[in-house]
Amino acid sequence: MLSHHGLERAGRRGFLGMLAAGGASAVVQAQPPLAVRLPEAMARPGGADLPYGLPAPHEAQAERTLSMAAGFAVWRTPLQRQRGIITPSGLHFAVHHNGLPDIDPGRHELRLHGLVNKPLKFDLERLLRYPMVSRVHFLECAGNSAANALSPTALDQTLGEIAGEVSCSEWMGVPLSYLLHEAGLKDSAQWVVVEGADGGSHSRSLPLKALLKDGMVALFQNGERLRPSQGYPMRLFVPGWEGNVNVKWLHRLEVTDAPAYTKDESGLYTQVLADGRIERFAFHMEVKSVITHPSGQQRLPDPHGFYEISGLAWSGRGRIARVDVSVDGGRSWAPAQLQGPVLDRAFTRFTLPWQWRGRQADLMSRATDEHGHTQPLRSEWKRRYAMHSFNHYNAVQAWRVQADGRVENLYA
Amino acid sequence: MLSHHGLERAGRRGFLGMLAAGGASAVVQAQPPLAVRLPEAMARPGGADLPYGLPAPHEAQAERTLSMAAGFAVWRTPLQRQRGIITPSGLHFAVHHNGLPDIDPGRHELRLHGLVNKPLKFDLERLLRYPMVSRVHFLECAGNSAANALSPTALDQTLGEIAGEVSCSEWMGVPLSYLLHEAGLKDSAQWVVVEGADGGSHSRSLPLKALLKDGMVALFQNGERLRPSQGYPMRLFVPGWEGNVNVKWLHRLEVTDAPAYTKDESGLYTQVLADGRIERFAFHMEVKSVITHPSGQQRLPDPHGFYEISGLAWSGRGRIARVDVSVDGGRSWAPAQLQGPVLDRAFTRFTLPWQWRGRQADLMSRATDEHGHTQPLRSEWKRRYAMHSFNHYNAVQAWRVQADGRVENLYA
Repeated sequence: MLSHHGLERAGRRGFLGMLAAGGASAVVQAQPPLAVRLPEAMARPGGADLPYGLPAPHEAQAERTLSMAAGFAVWRTPLQRQRGIITPSGLHFAVHHNGLPDIDPGRHELRLHGLVNKPLKFDLERLLRYPMVSRVHFLECAGNSAANALSPTALDQTLGEIAGEVSCSEWMGVPLSYLLHEAGLKDSAQWVVVEGADGGSHSRSLPLKALLKDGMVALFQNGERLRPSQGYPMRLFVPGWEGNVNVKWLHRLEVTDAPAYTKDESGLYTQVLADGRIERFAFHMEVKSVITHPSGQQRLPDPHGFYEISGLAWSGRGRIARVDVSVDGGRSWAPAQLQGPVLDRAFTRFTLPWQWRGRQADLMSRATDEHGHTQPLRSEWKRRYAMHSFNHYNAVQAWRVQADGRVENLYA
Repeated sequence: MLSHHGLERAGRRGFLGMLAAGGASAVVQAQPPLAVRLPEAMARPGGADLPYGLPAPHEAQAERTLSMAAGFAVWRTPLQRQRGIITPSGLHFAVHHNGLPDIDPGRHELRLHGLVNKPLKFDLERLLRYPMVSRVHFLECAGNSAANALSPTALDQTLGEIAGEVSCSEWMGVPLSYLLHEAGLKDSAQWVVVEGADGGSHSRSLPLKALLKDGMVALFQNGERLRPSQGYPMRLFVPGWEGNVNVKWLHRLEVTDAPAYTKDESGLYTQVLADGRIERFAFHMEVKSVITHPSGQQRLPDPHGFYEISGLAWSGRGRIARVDVSVDGGRSWAPAQLQGPVLDRAFTRFTLPWQWRGRQADLMSRATDEHGHTQPLRSEWKRRYAMHSFNHYNAVQAWRVQADGRVENLYA
């Protein structure tokens, strides 16, 4: 089973030499002289693979967390486990207002009607013939990080539990402009009422102009058909806009001259400002960032030493231009390195090397997008909105690293 | 269950108007006047979601295909189903020389030894503390498209069956240069022998210089830990190089002054040229492209009409600069549109609108990378290599669209 150049030679030349050197490196552990063994897996034939592969059984703890809020099922992405910018489809966040509808793709239809010259109806086969575009974009629930907005004290939770209603995927589908232009828009057309085929008949009114610019009927996510949790067989996707307007299980687009003031937009997805005015139809998700490593409830394994601070930044208005990181609670800031590719309205990974000295340290990240929008501190965000507002929370997320290495959510 | 702005209004204003218009559009089917019904899924509460989501049951046919070649299990990606550039991890191709080893990540170690000043040993926890990089890259088996190289007549198969040993993911891990520099390279160091912890003790010798440039120990794929099929808990990744050198289940890196001529490189992954010379250590995968839609065994549903030709291009040497598409068997070519982002040594999606006239048509794509490398025709490729060579096949893939719409593999 050993190849000639294999462990046998390694044992003689490499590991014995290493042991003779007496463990010169901090990462070399002392070994009994005869302990050079083949990994067990090399001593036996391997097992079978699957036609559709799954994660390793050892990674079963990599799951979305479920909580119920206002009767909705909220599945949050464990962002503290994510590396890179693509969220695995199986871990993409989802908020279901009325569960997962079971839709037969062969019978599903999308209707486009209202203030158009020619109402249209599309089945899936028809839609698949249209030209498609693909783009990597984040998607974030309007209510992401709500607990940070509402709870008077910082909750000791993981990053995913705190801010896991955001994920990033490659989305592919048919530009809405193709369908709207084929239907022919009447002069009075200004809005589109979008409805999903779920038991909650979730629906939103969206300005026509924005949908013509870069709305799409998404059919694919990360290279495969949408999953049920993401609106199979089709959903609306509007890059950078709050999650709920990206209507899942899409079955109807009605072109109108005014918003419909649906149940889902008249109360649920509005924000009350501090002066009592109401912010309605505020679609864009603002610039935001989170440090994923280290983050809430993680523990730094070594009391001293090198760590890479790593995190994710995004903006519903464009590309991330810079991310600044503080390790002293905001007294000083250093620019993090942005890992390419830096894409429009997508997760951008940032990193910064950090030498921890084993003392309490307060970590913060503050992202700025290409238009100069930057994140407020929590206190600044709270001054802008009424006490019980929580949507579109984008304040700086802080983590306290305790002297024993444990990491906790912090209001700073 | 109906919202006030909902289908009721649509029925009165939209669909009845549409019916009155007598089906002005080709895509509107005549409907009995009272057939405006809610989708069934709207009439009942939805079902439960899962902590780790799965594809829709209706998409169960989206699977990798398994075949055995030279005793290896070859799992091919159904590229004819993929849209966008990211391959779902569950559908990523894999070639297992000796099955899937079951590795306990808590006991797995990576040893770095040989011509270094300080041999090192890394467990997973230690490696996770190093700075990481993430990059979107394709990965292709040296033997991808072998049947096109070897079979005297073009086999009537799907694209995945023909050329599905290539996929594209976001890979994240620790640059190998960090580990090699920490170990300290002796002056005579020139090669690295890389070994996996599988029952086949798969191993390859790789030039040190290239590994220092952009080799990495990959720990994550598409945002989550590597899957067993991709080398869990760690694999070597060298962007643009043939699949088998990206050793899975990585457990040993031995720095040497010469190649080890392992069993896996002395015969299996070499190419015999037409003049009898042998091409050895030819690591780069060459520029290549395939039209994914329409492709082998698909059928165009309409005898006439608009189709979007869509495909994937990649090069192991850099970015794709252009893709030309022919619909007349290579007599004329039109430049396809490249869908962004166009990334270094990654899948690039290309598209071209096409009006099919219901007659036999021979489709071809020819990619060119930023260094001017372009794809040969099959006849040109065959002239370069000996009759039984098949590795690194990158000739133009042609499809014949029959007059009845059926698509077949074609040698052109």
